[in-house]
Amino acid sequence: MTALNAQRMQECLDACLRCLKACENCAAACLFEPEVAGLRACIRLDRDCADVCALTAQLLMRGSELHPDACLLCAVSCARCAAECEKHAHHHEHCRVCAEACRACEALCRQMAA
Amino acid sequence: MTALNAQRMQECLDACLRCLKACENCAAACLFEPEVAGLRACIRLDRDCADVCALTAQLLMRGSELHPDACLLCAVSCARCAAECEKHAHHHEHCRVCAEACRACEALCRQMAA
Amino acid sequence: MTALNAQRMQECLDACLRCLKACENCAAACLFEPEVAGLRACIRLDRDCADVCALTAQLLMRGSELHPDACLLCAVSCARCAAECEKHAHHHEHCRVCAEACRACEALCRQMAA
Amino acid sequence: MTALNAQRMQECLDACLRCLKACENCAAACLFEPEVAGLRACIRLDRDCADVCALTAQLLMRGSELHPDACLLCAVSCARCAAECEKHAHHHEHCRVCAEACRACEALCRQMAA
Repeated sequence: MTALNAQRMQECLDACLRCLKACENCAAACLFEPEVAGLRACIRLDRDCADVCALTAQLLMRGSELHPDACLLCAVSCARCAAECEKHAHHHEHCRVCAEACRACEALCRQMAA
Repeated sequence: MTALNAQRMQECLDACLRCLKACENCAAACLFEPEVAGLRACIRLDRDCADVCALTAQLLMRGSELHPDACLLCAVSCARCAAECEKHAHHHEHCRVCAEACRACEALCRQMAA
Repeated sequence: MTALNAQRMQECLDACLRCLKACENCAAACLFEPEVAGLRACIRLDRDCADVCALTAQLLMRGSELHPDACLLCAVSCARCAAECEKHAHHHEHCRVCAEACRACEALCRQMAA
Repeated sequence: MTALNAQRMQECLDACLRCLKACENCAAACLFEPEVAGLRACIRLDRDCADVCALTAQLLMRGSELHPDACLLCAVSCARCAAECEKHAHHHEHCRVCAEACRACEALCRQMAA
């Protein structure tokens, strides 16, 4: 692996871990908002995205040859979660933070998948 | 969801769980074979495939909208693991069983991903 | 490993996978119930229990020496999830099914942990 | 949650993620060492410990009430992995790094479990 590739993998890994944390936090917080009924899609997508980020991070950590394919799935997952969180970003700080983490992770995962 | 779709998701889920189990078993058994040095690629791919199958199974169980994307990753993972296990299938029963489970899972995941 | 131990591990593994599936299904269904606000604890515990069951199942599949410790965690997790699901079992079939799967898994995990 | 508790959970989470990464790296590196046959136990324990750390980190991120029980499992897992890695720490930098990360994670997980 070249030094450039190693650096890109490290940045992608860091973004996956930040996104995982933001998604877990957002799902837990949404569930206890008074208007939980309006946040169902957000909770579902947060959870899916957290689990996809966790797997992608583990594959990146171990240098798996599957990492580009996993990054493609992760980019799709982050894009969907971000689009939903952005709808609630003006009302909930946890959604705003999650949307940002998802967009950052999506961009780096798309690079790795290419 | 139509009854046909529900049945196909159930069959795919069952195949993912069988493949997960076969991969975990094959990885553990390969590691204790006398010629472990010749089974490095098999151990790596078994582990990756097990983890991808586990995530895909969980997404199918919860009816996640990401399941077609996850099934695409799972099909790729199963195909690579099967190709490696098939090289050792004449010498190791655990590799033969794992290759079969991977091929069955690959086929059903490709259907779901389409 | 004796034949008796292998059979007990297999039964415990099957119970973990059934519980995982019931928890994933219950969490997804609770989230779309009209009275989702009354099911917050159930959704949280379902999710935690699903993830603990998934790890325990993988450790059992690979014959990990950590499996008794993981089974102890799994028994605790199943007991808490069952206690919550039982509160809703008369109103929601998915909670009733989940409570049963959790109790069955709890019992077998306690045996393995002992 | 008090500020002190939140800080302790954050430190424990960081330690789990560092340990996860060190275990994944050590397992991947051990598998490609010339004397892989002497590193079987290390590879097995690295993998188990990585998976336990990943679950524990996710439960901490979501503030799960199961986190003390998960931290207890994680402390046991880290202790076993560290004890094995320490045997190889003079020959392999990845084992030395992993042993250190495991010991740090073990200590913080024991605090959380208490």
